[in-house]
Amino acid sequence: LLGLGHVGSAIAALALARPAALERTVSITCALVRDPGARVRQPGVPLTTNPRDVFEGGPEVIVEVIGGLDPARSLVLEALDRRIPVVTANKSLLARHGNELLTAARQAGVPLRYEASVIAGVPFLDTLARRPLASSLSSLSGILNGTSNYILSEMERGSDYRAALAEAQRRGFAEPDPSKDVEGIDALEKLTILLRQFTASDVSPDAIEVTGITRVSREDLVHARELGGVIKPVVHASWSGHEIDAFAGPAWVPRTHPLASLSGPTNGMRLCDGAGTALCFTGPGAGPRVTAITVLDDVIEATRGGWAPSPATGRARVSAPATRWLVRARGREPRPDVTSFGDRLASCGVGIERVSVGDACGRGTAWLLTHPCSRDRVEAAASTLAAAAGCDAFVLRTLEP
Amino acid sequence: LLGLGHVGSAIAALALARPAALERTVSITCALVRDPGARVRQPGVPLTTNPRDVFEGGPEVIVEVIGGLDPARSLVLEALDRRIPVVTANKSLLARHGNELLTAARQAGVPLRYEASVIAGVPFLDTLARRPLASSLSSLSGILNGTSNYILSEMERGSDYRAALAEAQRRGFAEPDPSKDVEGIDALEKLTILLRQFTASDVSPDAIEVTGITRVSREDLVHARELGGVIKPVVHASWSGHEIDAFAGPAWVPRTHPLASLSGPTNGMRLCDGAGTALCFTGPGAGPRVTAITVLDDVIEATRGGWAPSPATGRARVSAPATRWLVRARGREPRPDVTSFGDRLASCGVGIERVSVGDACGRGTAWLLTHPCSRDRVEAAASTLAAAAGCDAFVLRTLEP
Repeated sequence: LLGLGHVGSAIAALALARPAALERTVSITCALVRDPGARVRQPGVPLTTNPRDVFEGGPEVIVEVIGGLDPARSLVLEALDRRIPVVTANKSLLARHGNELLTAARQAGVPLRYEASVIAGVPFLDTLARRPLASSLSSLSGILNGTSNYILSEMERGSDYRAALAEAQRRGFAEPDPSKDVEGIDALEKLTILLRQFTASDVSPDAIEVTGITRVSREDLVHARELGGVIKPVVHASWSGHEIDAFAGPAWVPRTHPLASLSGPTNGMRLCDGAGTALCFTGPGAGPRVTAITVLDDVIEATRGGWAPSPATGRARVSAPATRWLVRARGREPRPDVTSFGDRLASCGVGIERVSVGDACGRGTAWLLTHPCSRDRVEAAASTLAAAAGCDAFVLRTLEP
Repeated sequence: LLGLGHVGSAIAALALARPAALERTVSITCALVRDPGARVRQPGVPLTTNPRDVFEGGPEVIVEVIGGLDPARSLVLEALDRRIPVVTANKSLLARHGNELLTAARQAGVPLRYEASVIAGVPFLDTLARRPLASSLSSLSGILNGTSNYILSEMERGSDYRAALAEAQRRGFAEPDPSKDVEGIDALEKLTILLRQFTASDVSPDAIEVTGITRVSREDLVHARELGGVIKPVVHASWSGHEIDAFAGPAWVPRTHPLASLSGPTNGMRLCDGAGTALCFTGPGAGPRVTAITVLDDVIEATRGGWAPSPATGRARVSAPATRWLVRARGREPRPDVTSFGDRLASCGVGIERVSVGDACGRGTAWLLTHPCSRDRVEAAASTLAAAAGCDAFVLRTLEP
């Protein structure tokens, strides 16, 4: 075990409980930690601060749950170089250095498994990596961050952002520093992992548009509903070869979309092929117990043989798609001048499909659902509107069905 | 290829189209058919009527898509005996003889794959068979027959049973003889396959309660909706060791249940573990193209090695569960005497939770949602009601959340 935090401890506890379902006993040769004094000692889990103890203790599989990029990257590379199979749940590492690691695994002929990195409770990554025809897809949409989905779901039910975040932390979905969750980075990293697999392209997370949920208000959720949808923290991508349209961030989702009904910490993903066939997977996205189950199943699979997914074969070219937008325009007066708002946007080439009117912080506000256009265009239009009508304007993407 | 019907032809056409996603070319050594004159000849698909030509033609994998029990069973056993990997999509064969085939595959040390047998478009059976902890489940619910789901969805939208069935046949979901679909046998067979895998029990389909959708009327669907749900063709099972509660048939499903929103030919399954974790998989359940994709992916996997799921280790003891029921009581008068209906049922020990009133065929009818009880009890109560009040009564299970 590399790392013995929440997830590492849950893995150790599950392995040591010897679940009846496991045909083989899983024992832990040792756990690498930075500060043994800071860890509660578990019988059966020898601690060390020296990576050499891990590599030379004869482990059949190395499990990396340190998190972050370093030293996780160099430890995983060393394990693969020593031909020791690796299981990891580290999204950041896979998003940033996945192709290097897959290449190393391929060269060493040993498995590298990371089923827990995306929708931790639902095994599908390896299944699809093994199945070339089921993986011949053209688009995906998903809710990949449980903390954000939980917070927006609670805000839908009337909670405010801070209370919902505090409750997510109390329940163990959100980290003490929740910025990677609420700013969309966690979902972005998972999207990067999926895109590498489904497009065979090496994708940099930095190339993908990402926004967080922190600017979404309770009023936005209410008026999203009046417009026939719900605001969800999504990822979306469509592709042809190495050309990818993608974004990660909160979006207005039509109520009939399969992702619209996923609430609380539940994650889900919808995969579509060119013929219109759609598969959905939903389940728990995170949590120490769920992650420990998936990691230990990966350990069992890693002992079966040398399979690892292929590294990417090309470099992705990523753009942000044209979508419809939800524009929130908050004026100075108690009642918004919807006609004028709509005219200003239309004059900038942004057509309006539907409008919901209300107030936000005592000021007349309109929520306008636009026709599809680029982010540049809607942001230019929103700036023009803000300057001319004294509005403040906020834009949010939509997820098309 | 054993068999060259709709599915067999789709597999041949897909293989011969050489999809770019396949790293290896798949060629067809020969296809076993009963009457070569009855088949449209495809270039690249030599036909034979002699099984010996198939076995001795040096195939790397044998694909069984004849359907039915015989000669499919003996041909698959012969292939395994000759240590040739087998891929099949044959639910009936797997439901009735799956344990015998799995045992033969295990003894021969060759793969037996049947991913297309349950929710043909969604690969999950093998994934879960490989993952002992993710497979430590305690219940499942599913919509496993696309024809029945399509028919009830169309009836919801105002179509009548015959027109919906004819349309399903026109679109290729339903067989020319749809009785296995509409009488619930197809879903029952799939449930049997799932139960063998998840409970490690050999389950006979004959031990499981099964009902068809043919007695469900449009009025039932309307009043199911008034009671806050929808009637869906489901399977449900919960278990502890080899003790299983299970049924297959149409059931009233609360609107908030994840299966309630699956309409048309879409299939789906919800798997729950003892800790309340739920995974869902949804996607197309049948169709030649989708089945061909899954079968060919299985062929690719079968060439990778000798993995096959374990045969069952025990014999299942199956009961029908106590659930709530939807009782349709159609009286003689234009207005139903709901109070009397409820009193009669209550006097037989069947409590009533909610009622919706209307008419069916011009006669006053009540739809009563009961408290949980056994089938024996609700059927005895319905008979008592029918005899005393001159009703005809029909009962339908509910799917609990």
